[in-house]
Amino acid sequence: MASMIFTDPWSVSAVNCLPFARFSNGLISIRRFVASMATEPSAKVIDGKSVAKQIKEEISAEVSKLKEEIGVVPGLAVVLVGDGKDSATYVRNKKKACEPVGINSFEVHLPDDASEEELLKFISGFNGDLSVHGILVQLPLLSNILNAVTIEKDVDGFHPLNIGRLAMQGREPLFVPCTPKRCIGLLHRYGVEIKGKTAVVIGQSNIVGMPAALLLQKEDATVPTVHSRTMNPEEITRQADIIISAVGQPNMVRDNWIKPDAVIIDVGINPVEDASSPRGYRLVGDVCYEEACKIAAAVTPVPGGVGPMTIATLLSNTPSSAKRAYNIK
Amino acid sequence: MASMIFTDPWSVSAVNCLPFARFSNGLISIRRFVASMATEPSAKVIDGKSVAKQIKEEISAEVSKLKEEIGVVPGLAVVLVGDGKDSATYVRNKKKACEPVGINSFEVHLPDDASEEELLKFISGFNGDLSVHGILVQLPLLSNILNAVTIEKDVDGFHPLNIGRLAMQGREPLFVPCTPKRCIGLLHRYGVEIKGKTAVVIGQSNIVGMPAALLLQKEDATVPTVHSRTMNPEEITRQADIIISAVGQPNMVRDNWIKPDAVIIDVGINPVEDASSPRGYRLVGDVCYEEACKIAAAVTPVPGGVGPMTIATLLSNTPSSAKRAYNIK
Repeated sequence: MASMIFTDPWSVSAVNCLPFARFSNGLISIRRFVASMATEPSAKVIDGKSVAKQIKEEISAEVSKLKEEIGVVPGLAVVLVGDGKDSATYVRNKKKACEPVGINSFEVHLPDDASEEELLKFISGFNGDLSVHGILVQLPLLSNILNAVTIEKDVDGFHPLNIGRLAMQGREPLFVPCTPKRCIGLLHRYGVEIKGKTAVVIGQSNIVGMPAALLLQKEDATVPTVHSRTMNPEEITRQADIIISAVGQPNMVRDNWIKPDAVIIDVGINPVEDASSPRGYRLVGDVCYEEACKIAAAVTPVPGGVGPMTIATLLSNTPSSAKRAYNIK
Repeated sequence: MASMIFTDPWSVSAVNCLPFARFSNGLISIRRFVASMATEPSAKVIDGKSVAKQIKEEISAEVSKLKEEIGVVPGLAVVLVGDGKDSATYVRNKKKACEPVGINSFEVHLPDDASEEELLKFISGFNGDLSVHGILVQLPLLSNILNAVTIEKDVDGFHPLNIGRLAMQGREPLFVPCTPKRCIGLLHRYGVEIKGKTAVVIGQSNIVGMPAALLLQKEDATVPTVHSRTMNPEEITRQADIIISAVGQPNMVRDNWIKPDAVIIDVGINPVEDASSPRGYRLVGDVCYEEACKIAAAVTPVPGGVGPMTIATLLSNTPSSAKRAYNIK
C-alpha cells in the first residue's frame, strides 16, 4: 500500500468529501441531491474485521484437522530482502498471525545487497522442503525472481502460470492472489450477486486490479477496468453494480461516480494530512466514504474493511497447499 | 469456427438485417434513423485480404533474411489427431501457406484412437528438434496435452504461462494467440487509436475473446467483455469506440448496438441458410454488416475481413520463434 502522504489535487479537494464539490459535475441527479442532503448514511457497512475473524477460525479448524488426520503442520516461509523498518514489521506481523492458527512460520532475512544466487539458493531450499507449503518472496522490487518459487508453493498467486489459469475458462489457478480473493470473498459472504452484473475495477495493477477483474469475469460479471488513461472514468464507473477500487488515490471516487445501490469494495489505504490527528495524518480509501454511504447499498470502510482480511486470506492459502501436497480434498 | 448452419432466433430474424427489425428497440435515435434511410453505406471497409498479402510479403522477407544471415529455415510442425475431412483440409492449407513464404512444414497425423503416450512422444520429439520452431497441436478437444508443447515453440500462444504474461503489466508473452493478434493488427494497420478508448469484446473464449480483451487492455483501452450472461449487452456495446465480436451468432450485433463512428472487427464466420446460393448457405458475421456500414466508421466484412489473416498471422509467429532461438533481434 501507499507509504507516502498524498497531497495531489484529489486529496486537497476531497479529503473531507465536502458536499459542495459534488456540484462541480452537472450530471448530478435529483435522487443524489436528495441523498446528499440526508443526515443518516443508508449503506450497509461491510465489516472486514468480523469476516477476518471468521476466516481465521476456519483456518484454525482446517489446520487442526490436518494435524490430527495425517500429522502434517502447514508451513509458510518468507524470504525477505532489505533492511527497512517495513520489512521487520512485516516479518513480525506474519509470525504473529501464523501462531494462533497453528501454521509453522519460517523466515530468511537477507540484506539489501544480497546476490541473486544467494536468494535463489534459499528459494530453492524452501521449494524442496517438505515442511514448507507456501513461500512468499518480499523484494524491494518485483522481479523475475518470483518465478523461482515452485508453482505448487506460490501462495501469493503472482506466478504468470497462475494468472494465465485465472484468465482461462475451464482452468483453475493453484492459488488466487490474496487481495483480489478477499474482495470477492467479501462479496460472497455478504450475498452480493456477481453473475451477469457490471463490475468496474479501478486500477489495473498485477497484484490487485488485474487479478480482481479476472476473478469477477470468471464469475460471469462484465468487467471494465478503469485506469489513468480511461477517458471517462466517472461515466464508466457510474454504470457499475459492483465497484472494486485499488488505485491508491485518496477519495477519488465521489458520489457522482456511484450508481445508486452499488456495492463498493475499497482496497485503497491512503494517508492524508490531518493536523487534528496525533500522528499528523489519517487513513482514507480511494472512495469518499461519507458520500458513498449515502448512495451505495454497501461499502467497506477504510480502515476496517478490506485491510484486516489481508493476512487471513494469505494464511488460508497455506493449509490449502498442504492439502494439495497430500492429495486431501 | 462454427461448422453448423445456425437457425436460432437471431439468424431467423436477422439474416437479411431487415431495416424494420431496428424499430423493435425504442432507443433508436434520429441520427440512426436517418442513417438507416441512406442508400449508400458510409463506413470504411477494412480489407483483410490486402493486409494478409502485406503480412505474407513481410514474412517472406524475414525468412529469406534468416536463411542468408545464419542459414536457418524456420520450421512449423503440426500434430493432428482425428480422421475428419476438416483435418485433411487443415493440413493441406497449412502446407500450401508455408511453402510460398519459405517456411518448412512438418506433420504428424494420428488416428482418433491414438494414445496419449503416442501423442506426447511426437510432441516431445518436435520439442527437441532444432529444425522446428513452432508446434501446433490440433485435437478434437482442447486439453492439457497443449501444455506439453514447450513454451518456446507454442506458436498458438494458448499456454497458460503465455496467457498470464499477456495479462500482466510489464511482462510480455512469447507468442500472442493468432486471431486476437490479427484483430489488433488490423486496428494498427488502419491507424485506429486504442489508448484510452472503450473497446467492447463480445465473447470470452480462451482462443479469441479473452486474449483479445487482454491485448486491448495492454494497449490502455478500457475493455468490458460482453457474454451470454451479460444483462444489457446492447447498452454496453453501444458505448464502445471499438467492437471486437467473436461469439459465433449470425447478425447478432444490430445497429442499435453500435455507437456512431465505432470501429468494428467481426471475427464470427457463421453459415446461414440461403436457398439462392448454390451451396444452400452463405457466410455472415456476428455483426449485421449492412446496418453496421451505415453507422460505423469502419467495419470488417465477412468473408474477406479477419478470415484471410488467420494463416498469415500464424505463420508470422514461426520466424519470430526461430529468431528468438538464435538470439536475433
